[in-house]
Amino acid sequence: MKRIAFLLVAVAAVAGVVAYSAPAPGRADEEAAPIFGIRIFPGYRDWRLISVAHEEGDLNDLRAILGNDAAIKAYREDLLPFPDGTVIARIAWSYVPSEENNKAFSRQQSFVPGSAPDWYLQFMVKDSKKYAATAGWGFAQFNKDGKPADEAKHKTCFPCHEPAKARDFVFTRYAP
Amino acid sequence: MKRIAFLLVAVAAVAGVVAYSAPAPGRADEEAAPIFGIRIFPGYRDWRLISVAHEEGDLNDLRAILGNDAAIKAYREDLLPFPDGTVIARIAWSYVPSEENNKAFSRQQSFVPGSAPDWYLQFMVKDSKKYAATAGWGFAQFNKDGKPADEAKHKTCFPCHEPAKARDFVFTRYAP
Repeated sequence: MKRIAFLLVAVAAVAGVVAYSAPAPGRADEEAAPIFGIRIFPGYRDWRLISVAHEEGDLNDLRAILGNDAAIKAYREDLLPFPDGTVIARIAWSYVPSEENNKAFSRQQSFVPGSAPDWYLQFMVKDSKKYAATAGWGFAQFNKDGKPADEAKHKTCFPCHEPAKARDFVFTRYAP
Repeated sequence: MKRIAFLLVAVAAVAGVVAYSAPAPGRADEEAAPIFGIRIFPGYRDWRLISVAHEEGDLNDLRAILGNDAAIKAYREDLLPFPDGTVIARIAWSYVPSEENNKAFSRQQSFVPGSAPDWYLQFMVKDSKKYAATAGWGFAQFNKDGKPADEAKHKTCFPCHEPAKARDFVFTRYAP
């Protein structure tokens, strides 16, 4: 009984840390994405920066690419293929002019993150055994509410990444 | 003598950690920026993400805004003014199309970080006593080699940030 009580306290303490470090989303009770069964990684918003990008066209977003410790180490040491345990997180926001910044500069100059598109959050997870059918990578996409995209969407992930095969299917380079 | 030897070992150990976590720049022997006397903060490249942006026009860059622990806490808790100890780092890269990504998508779509412009690295440091003359903020700009911009450049920092007075002179909002 004492051990169970201790466990509950420990779980509550960990949950508290997670809630603080990644306000939303990232709760352990959230739905796993189809096909690869990936859940949102708690605390991903605290991960270190790999790079930033702007996608034009249909996407029209501004994005940040973050990595867990294994990902950052692999990038900085030029390790290819990425080792098992690598997780890359991509957060996207709609691409909007900053009215307040532009007013300060008296011209249209600044573009900043706006609202969250349906493709708000993506993960690439390296596990060469579990995801052997897709070159060792699992993929997942979630909207801002933590809801995963459907199975059809997840079927497009790996084919889209195939052109980046020479860099272990990862498009993003490290921003030095 | 023993104490000195211990101190040297401790310094070497700390230097080793710094060298690993922030490959370049960020060496303790680098020059301080004029006016505010700020040096590059070791390990800033490991700080957490505040936001990303694209600046058009003369700047034409992609940028990431990172914060030390005090900055992240202040942003997440909506603390204004920012408390003493807050440091915000802004890294900028030239805004370039990604030939390899665009080839994969068969269209001009991706813009990614390119080379480092002269305004590669900037810091805003909150110290309400030390920088009382500039509303509690110290400013610094460095190029990729860690060389600070000149005094004339540093004189432009605070006036440029004055339009953001309502948000304690900080333009960047937290990207949720």
